[in-house]
Amino acid sequence: MPVRIHHVGVAVTNLDESILLYRSAFGAELVHRATNEKEGLEAAFLRMGDGEVELMTPLREDSPVGKFMAKRGPGFHHVAYGVSDIESALAEARAAGLELIDNEPRVGMHGARIAFLHPKSVGGVLTELVEI
Amino acid sequence: MPVRIHHVGVAVTNLDESILLYRSAFGAELVHRATNEKEGLEAAFLRMGDGEVELMTPLREDSPVGKFMAKRGPGFHHVAYGVSDIESALAEARAAGLELIDNEPRVGMHGARIAFLHPKSVGGVLTELVEI
Repeated sequence: MPVRIHHVGVAVTNLDESILLYRSAFGAELVHRATNEKEGLEAAFLRMGDGEVELMTPLREDSPVGKFMAKRGPGFHHVAYGVSDIESALAEARAAGLELIDNEPRVGMHGARIAFLHPKSVGGVLTELVEI
Repeated sequence: MPVRIHHVGVAVTNLDESILLYRSAFGAELVHRATNEKEGLEAAFLRMGDGEVELMTPLREDSPVGKFMAKRGPGFHHVAYGVSDIESALAEARAAGLELIDNEPRVGMHGARIAFLHPKSVGGVLTELVEI
């Protein structure tokens, strides 16, 4: 499974201020911004070379990202690896002993098929696979 | 300043086991492994597309990564953005209001010139610039 770093997910307190910061400090380009009511978050995707930084802020304290921020504060949330065939990638991850959060791919905020792997099986790193 | 995601730094408990995991689960390729006695860490760089994952483990509890792990546990440690001119990049980061840990570039474990930005000025994300 050839992979690349697709994006890094970062939990932020103020989405607008964080977008401005990444644009002014790192020349990142805002490519997509969306709200996911079901997951209770608003996210902005900023291009950095051929990868992206996903800035995420919770809409509710009891959302997954809201609970994450209450426990850990703002900062790194997840890393996503781009794969060409997500079913094969999930099978390889399972064969390598990783615990899957999503046993089947689902559609992410960006329209791509994604699946999350449990951080406890990846050394504390919440890891996402994205089909590209 | 055009940038790209150069690598993601991850603090791990067992470097050998983590290298095996990233190779078997994600097809990552080990490209470099080195010990930095001064910083008190051993690190392995694994290629993921045109980016890398840096797996780091402390050699001593009182090293920076040792203290990080005692406080936060294993997991995300830093993200590094590749830049073509690190002096310009540091000047832009400073102009954007970011606090620098390294006011001047220094040579990192990989031989490249690097500088760290303070996580408190980047929303809790320890951020490194690498000249590429």
